[in-house]
Amino acid sequence: MPVREMIKTHPAEINLDRERLADAVLALVDCAQACTACADACLSEENVAELRKCVRTNLDCADICEATARVLSRHTGYDANITRAQLQACVQACSSCSEECGRHAAMHEHCRVCAERCRTCEQMCHNLLDAIT
Amino acid sequence: MPVREMIKTHPAEINLDRERLADAVLALVDCAQACTACADACLSEENVAELRKCVRTNLDCADICEATARVLSRHTGYDANITRAQLQACVQACSSCSEECGRHAAMHEHCRVCAERCRTCEQMCHNLLDAIT
Amino acid sequence: MPVREMIKTHPAEINLDRERLADAVLALVDCAQACTACADACLSEENVAELRKCVRTNLDCADICEATARVLSRHTGYDANITRAQLQACVQACSSCSEECGRHAAMHEHCRVCAERCRTCEQMCHNLLDAIT
Amino acid sequence: MPVREMIKTHPAEINLDRERLADAVLALVDCAQACTACADACLSEENVAELRKCVRTNLDCADICEATARVLSRHTGYDANITRAQLQACVQACSSCSEECGRHAAMHEHCRVCAERCRTCEQMCHNLLDAIT
Repeated sequence: MPVREMIKTHPAEINLDRERLADAVLALVDCAQACTACADACLSEENVAELRKCVRTNLDCADICEATARVLSRHTGYDANITRAQLQACVQACSSCSEECGRHAAMHEHCRVCAERCRTCEQMCHNLLDAIT
Repeated sequence: MPVREMIKTHPAEINLDRERLADAVLALVDCAQACTACADACLSEENVAELRKCVRTNLDCADICEATARVLSRHTGYDANITRAQLQACVQACSSCSEECGRHAAMHEHCRVCAERCRTCEQMCHNLLDAIT
Repeated sequence: MPVREMIKTHPAEINLDRERLADAVLALVDCAQACTACADACLSEENVAELRKCVRTNLDCADICEATARVLSRHTGYDANITRAQLQACVQACSSCSEECGRHAAMHEHCRVCAERCRTCEQMCHNLLDAIT
Repeated sequence: MPVREMIKTHPAEINLDRERLADAVLALVDCAQACTACADACLSEENVAELRKCVRTNLDCADICEATARVLSRHTGYDANITRAQLQACVQACSSCSEECGRHAAMHEHCRVCAERCRTCEQMCHNLLDAIT
């Protein structure tokens, strides 16, 4: 993924730690795709009735991660307040989703993989938040 | 828009004030469309160079409002923490965007309309937040 | 929804029939919200196992309608080829989704409402396509 | 990105060539992020007034690639007609966007990187389309 190249070639001043920023965008895009795929995999499982909350949380997490990845991919006219608030929402979504997927990780491999990606994404967003003044 | 009909026919328990919920979803969808259109209208203005921050904030606000509208359209396996955090991010995005569009409202009618929609959306999300326990 | 106001105040030349354009954007935004809500309502139904395909088609249709609404909300640097191809994909998604939701309309009121919105959206996109040269 | 792992652990029958499918999803997610970042980088360039069409096409391409990546990440209740039509729209968007970014590649490195990603994505979607019967 050309995240680092796009950051390096951006003409605007970037008001965020570039390493943490790139790590966060990569983790967000990963997590969004995993959540979209996990929601659909759950939907195909025989025990779909027990996975309702997992599907729903995956869908929320995918939507929130995608919106956050887009916000972090922009540097023109930077507004720290929007970035901070959206990162906080994303940390919450990833935390809830890793917990919910974690409950089904022993039974469904896609939930195990997805829970892991949510945890990584939560951590990367947390690291970036710490660097926003 | 069939927002109220979809809420009325949903089989799950809905843990939010139904009137405030419907008002918020309607305002979010309105605001997202206005921001997408305003970003593009700014891009076509002769003085686009002075509207860079306006375009960017419009794009962020559109993405955040769409994600929030989707989260609020789901009631299965409700997680108040995700809803609350995403609503807070949305209040921030709408507040920043109405301020930025407001700066250009006297010159560009699309910015005036968009600023108004952002203010309404901020208020509706605020009202819903107040009702989340 | 300020769709007509945003079209009227756009500084660029608009290369599409403005009435049909506004009708299509309104129908797309409606349909996307109905599909997101219907997918989640299906997920909460007792017979969710019989509604798997309906959930999936609703999710596809919501994503495709939202992307199409965004493309149609932009007029700067218009490219008829993108607009036409995305409208054709949207007509297909709405047709498949109205058919699938229609199968459950007698049993689930949310599917009945959603099928109707998909049919309207399909028609409005079709009308707009006919006007693209 | 866990695209291949998510495909391997999906419980449903997958009606697409798994290698081509994974290649397409990876290219789509790459391309969407590059287009979002390129639109914003263009917006920050001194000669933004000459990049209007480039910003707009990038925004369309990002929206269309994200919707396509989501459709391809689902396998429950597969509908070849939706997949095919959305892939065709995506091939068109990537073709237009690589051409438009290509015009500015000599002057702006972010346009060069983005044009390349669009071309790869167009090719991967084309390859997948060829495998849909």
